[in-house]
This record gives sequence, structure tokens and C-alpha cells, in this order.
Amino acid sequence: MLENTDRTELSTLGEFGLIKHLTQFVEIKNESTLKGIGDDAAVIDYKGKQMVVSTDMLVEGVHFDLAYMPLKHLGYKAISVNVSDIYAMNAMPKQVTISLAISSRFSVEAMEELYAGMMLACAKHKVDIVGGDTTSSKSGLVISITAIGEADADKIVYRSTAKEGDLLCVTGDLGAAYVGLQLLEREKQIFLESPGVQPDLEGNDYIIERQLKPEARKDIPVLLEKLEVKPTAMIDVSDGLASEILHLCTDSDTGCNLYEEKIPIDPSAYNTAREFNLDPTVCALNGGEDYELLFTIDQADFPKIKANPDITVIGHMTNKKDGVNLITKGGTQHPLTAQGWDALLKKPE
Amino acid sequence: MLENTDRTELSTLGEFGLIKHLTQFVEIKNESTLKGIGDDAAVIDYKGKQMVVSTDMLVEGVHFDLAYMPLKHLGYKAISVNVSDIYAMNAMPKQVTISLAISSRFSVEAMEELYAGMMLACAKHKVDIVGGDTTSSKSGLVISITAIGEADADKIVYRSTAKEGDLLCVTGDLGAAYVGLQLLEREKQIFLESPGVQPDLEGNDYIIERQLKPEARKDIPVLLEKLEVKPTAMIDVSDGLASEILHLCTDSDTGCNLYEEKIPIDPSAYNTAREFNLDPTVCALNGGEDYELLFTIDQADFPKIKANPDITVIGHMTNKKDGVNLITKGGTQHPLTAQGWDALLKKPE
Repeated sequence: MLENTDRTELSTLGEFGLIKHLTQFVEIKNESTLKGIGDDAAVIDYKGKQMVVSTDMLVEGVHFDLAYMPLKHLGYKAISVNVSDIYAMNAMPKQVTISLAISSRFSVEAMEELYAGMMLACAKHKVDIVGGDTTSSKSGLVISITAIGEADADKIVYRSTAKEGDLLCVTGDLGAAYVGLQLLEREKQIFLESPGVQPDLEGNDYIIERQLKPEARKDIPVLLEKLEVKPTAMIDVSDGLASEILHLCTDSDTGCNLYEEKIPIDPSAYNTAREFNLDPTVCALNGGEDYELLFTIDQADFPKIKANPDITVIGHMTNKKDGVNLITKGGTQHPLTAQGWDALLKKPE
Repeated sequence: MLENTDRTELSTLGEFGLIKHLTQFVEIKNESTLKGIGDDAAVIDYKGKQMVVSTDMLVEGVHFDLAYMPLKHLGYKAISVNVSDIYAMNAMPKQVTISLAISSRFSVEAMEELYAGMMLACAKHKVDIVGGDTTSSKSGLVISITAIGEADADKIVYRSTAKEGDLLCVTGDLGAAYVGLQLLEREKQIFLESPGVQPDLEGNDYIIERQLKPEARKDIPVLLEKLEVKPTAMIDVSDGLASEILHLCTDSDTGCNLYEEKIPIDPSAYNTAREFNLDPTVCALNGGEDYELLFTIDQADFPKIKANPDITVIGHMTNKKDGVNLITKGGTQHPLTAQGWDALLKKPE
């Protein structure tokens, strides 16, 4: 799906030329960004706040397939995935560095598309692009992004501090990104077999968008502050609910009871999962790429969040010896395992 | 040169297992590192200092060739290259994040070697590994590192602040890493043609080490502070002297006169360049990968640095309208151009 109508070869610009070209419209939005692109390093001043740093790498053919992922969406998603980790610390992202390895099969115009998506996401999250590296690749496209954020010391929330009795909450809904991926994969196969057939994605806007253009939950740290709730622990849902709950429990030294009936799943994701003969609960548990926030709160804070349509209580933390369990709709109890996937074989962190 | 004697497949560990395995001996050395690996993001507190951030990406087949680059050296070099950018800001590196895309042709043991080299360099520079991402690659190895450092606000030195009349100084010597690369390339070719022949690298330890195990100039910011010299501008020599001088001049809006006879070149680099029918000056100007520091100082500071064997004055900054020139040993003047290379075709930033 690369557009080759106006194709400028990367070699016409060279490395410095390409960086300059792509970053020419980058504007600094944060006071803390003293110096962005253009020196050996960026300079940042947080004036007494603490900084948080997270990094992610996306590899073509492993984390994305350009057959159905437009480059602009890919750029948007790459930023979203990274700032999501910053929100999961209850912090606000402020700066990113972007490194790209690009093969010569991409044109300058293709990289402009990618960058346009990144800049759109950065604008949305009020994040400054402060540096990066651009180099050639022997095969596909590799994107490595490091996100930097800030928070007051007493606001930062770790994974390891959930307590027995805390309520387990999740934002938004789960599983849709995975179901969206199944749909895109199916349409790609149909297209490969019958190139004349147009993809049938009608009525599936939501799940497609969840896969192609996920939104990191910028609103949640703000909402929690407004509600005067500080989560006891927090993590973002990138690998699937099961994997993230296991991280919380392992790091916090607790057990957990998760209630299947409480897991929020959008009706369109539910129905499409059924069409594919997939169990919607399994999609939510192991699908991943939802980029929602999973957090625990003290029971005393329940009244503050219970009326909020964007937060669902899906379980509670128990003693470690009670294990990590899924309580099914039928009332039976199963130990929760992260089947998910293996990033070294298939999917993003 | 990958050792396959004890080969553990990456798939036996999985992503989380591999990260855990590789980072199990990572110890936090800096007070500013409040939380390292193991959460959505690392947490850093610079308590009033400013932070500097730099990032580099190294791609197999583009920036390194595992036929002659042992993985441990590669790991060491990857860290050196990044912290060099931090020193070039007159700052001290404190944290790094490390992202790796690895193809299944690498074993766990191979990745241990790579990590051992990284940890050695991190120990040398007292830098904490605070995060990263590990994923699979369809072809070669990709390493993306982000380095974070700190400095007092009044200590940070930019590229853009050199003034007309300032002296241009460089640390150590130049061109050896490039000459070392030529030697390694030649021995690789001989090995490919006659696998029985052992590489003839004797007497070339210095230039080989400059290529395989470059040392970032940790000592220079410390030395400059001791000498009570604050450079007016600074950059590290990664792309070759010519390219870096042009960066300084462009960003500072000055010209420059560089004196060929002053350029420090190690005798072994000089002699080996001659053997290869290469002009040693051209190797210094365009070779790159020296990771020395290039800086300008006020003329009044000359007495403070003149006795130091590690710093050479190689020219002075002029008015922009006088251009950027090389004054040859013969006394003729040539405009300086960065021929070097194009990172999108061949070499690292």
C-alpha cells in the first residue's frame, strides 16, 4: 500500500537531509524542553519533578504488516504505544526520541507519511520530538521510540504496590484490537487470493480503529486526579489482560480474583469474535494491544469511581496463597495463565 | 564468529524470560535512578539538575559486521557511542535504555555476550541500564540505545555557541578507527578466499581497538572542569572531523581555519593508512568513529590547556564570510567539505 506516485529516493536526501526534512515542522510545546533536535543530545529541565522513561521497538513483519497498516497509522500507533507506558506510571509524557531504520524500498514520501502520523499523536499528547537517529536497514522498517514523562514524586504509581483487598479496575474495553487484527488478516488473505475484491470492513470501524489507531489513555491520570483517587498500582494493557494481571500480582506479591462477567467487551468486538469462532473473553485475556490502563484502588475509593462509565471494577486482589484466578460466568474458578503470545515469535510488548 | 558450542534457542526463554535473564545482574549505581527495569517506565530524579538525552541505532550489515566484530565488543561500542554524545554536551551519562531486535539465528549465549559488553561499558561509565525492549527481527540484529545524562544548567555546552576567534581543539587522535576498519575488511576478504589463513593483525592493536572498542571520553568533561575551562561549543567526532567542524560552523554561524599539520594522527594509523594507499589526513577528516571530542575555547583559556598532551589545538574559528577551510601542509587553502559517507548507504551516525 505504499504510494509510489511521487517517489523521491531516500538517497537523494542523505541522512542529515532526511532528518532535517522530516523534522522541519517539529515545534517545541513544553517548557521543560530546553533544546530539542539538533545537538548531540536534547536538554530537559524538570525543575524538581521526577522523570519517567520508557522505550519500545516496533519491527516490520513482527509488530506490523504494511499490507493493511497505513504508514500514517503506524506512526500514530508507535507514539501511542510509548506514551501509554508513561500514563501507566500516572505521569504525563513530555518528550520522545524517534529512531528509524529504513530500507531503500521506502521513499521520502512514505517516511513523510510515517512522520505525519507520529506528529499527529505527539500533538494530541502534547509531546515534543527532541531527538532520534535515522539509518538504513537491510530489510524492513524498524522503529524505536523512547518516551520521557514527568510527575510529582508523590504521584508516581508502580506495578508492585497493590495490596490484598484492593479493587482491580480497567478503563475502556478489551479485546477489540485483537479482533480487529483478525479481520484485517482475513481481508488481506482474501485480497491476496482475489486482488479484485474490495475489503469488507463495513460496520467494523471501531475494532479496526482499535487495531490501527489505538489511543493511549491521556485522560485517565487527569480523571483520577480530579476524582482524588491515587491507584495503589497501575500497568497498561499491551499484552492482554491476563499477562498484565499476572505482572501486577507477581510484582505486588498478591493473588487476584478476576470475574469474567465483569470484563468490559464492546458489542462489535464480541460479535465479530463470535463470527471468527473466537471466545470474546479469551480475546480480552490474551489478545493485547488494547492500551487501556489496569489499576488497583483501595476499597475506600470505590464510591469515587463507581459512577464513571470509563472505569470498570473487574475483580479484587487476594492473598498470594489464594493464587490468580478467573471466576467464570458459570461460577467456576480457573487459574489465570498468560498464554498470549511470545514476542520473540509474533507480537509487540 | 558466533559460538554455537552451548546453544540455547531464544524461544526457550520467551521475551520476558530473555529480558529477565539478560538483566539479572544489572545493579543500580546512581542515586538519581529511583526505579530501573521492571515497570512500565523507569523513574529518575535529577533534583534540580538538567537532563540530556541522546539516542543511536545500530543495524547489522550497516553499522557492524559480525564477521569481525565480536558481540561483546559490539555491546561495548554501542554503549560508548551513546555516552559519547552525552559527554559532548559536557554532561555525565547516568542511565541508558537498551532495545534489541534479534533474529532466531542468535542464541541466548550470543545475546549474553552482547549484554556482557554493554554491562562492561556501563560499569566503566557508571551508567545504569534502566529499561528497554527485546523483540524478534526477521533478519539481522538491531540495537537502539537511549542515553540520559545530567549536568548543572550552567555547565551544558551546545554546538551553536562558538565565536569568531575561538580556538578549535580536539582530544586524542583521529582516523585510527577508519584505518582499523580497512584492515579488518581486508583480513575478512582474505579469510573468505582462503579460510585456512589466520588474520594478520599483529602490531595493529591500537587501530583495531579504536574500531572494535572505542572509548568515549569520560575524562574530558572532568579534565575541563579541573582546568577551569568551559568550551564555547562542543561536539563528538562520530562522522569524521570535517563533518563535525561543518556542524559547529553552521550551527554557530562562523567560519573556520583548520591546519592539516596540527591534526593529531597516531603513527600506527598513519603508517597503515599509507600501506593502504590512503591519505592519513583524509582518514582523519572523513573516516569517523573516533568518538573524540571536538570543542572551541576562548583564546584567553589557551594557557590552561596548552600543556595537556590529550588536547590539540587544530585551528580557529573565523568570520562566516571567510568560509570553512583546510590549510594544507603546503600552505594552500581548500574549502572543507564533508565527503565522508552517507549513513543511509554505509555507516553510523
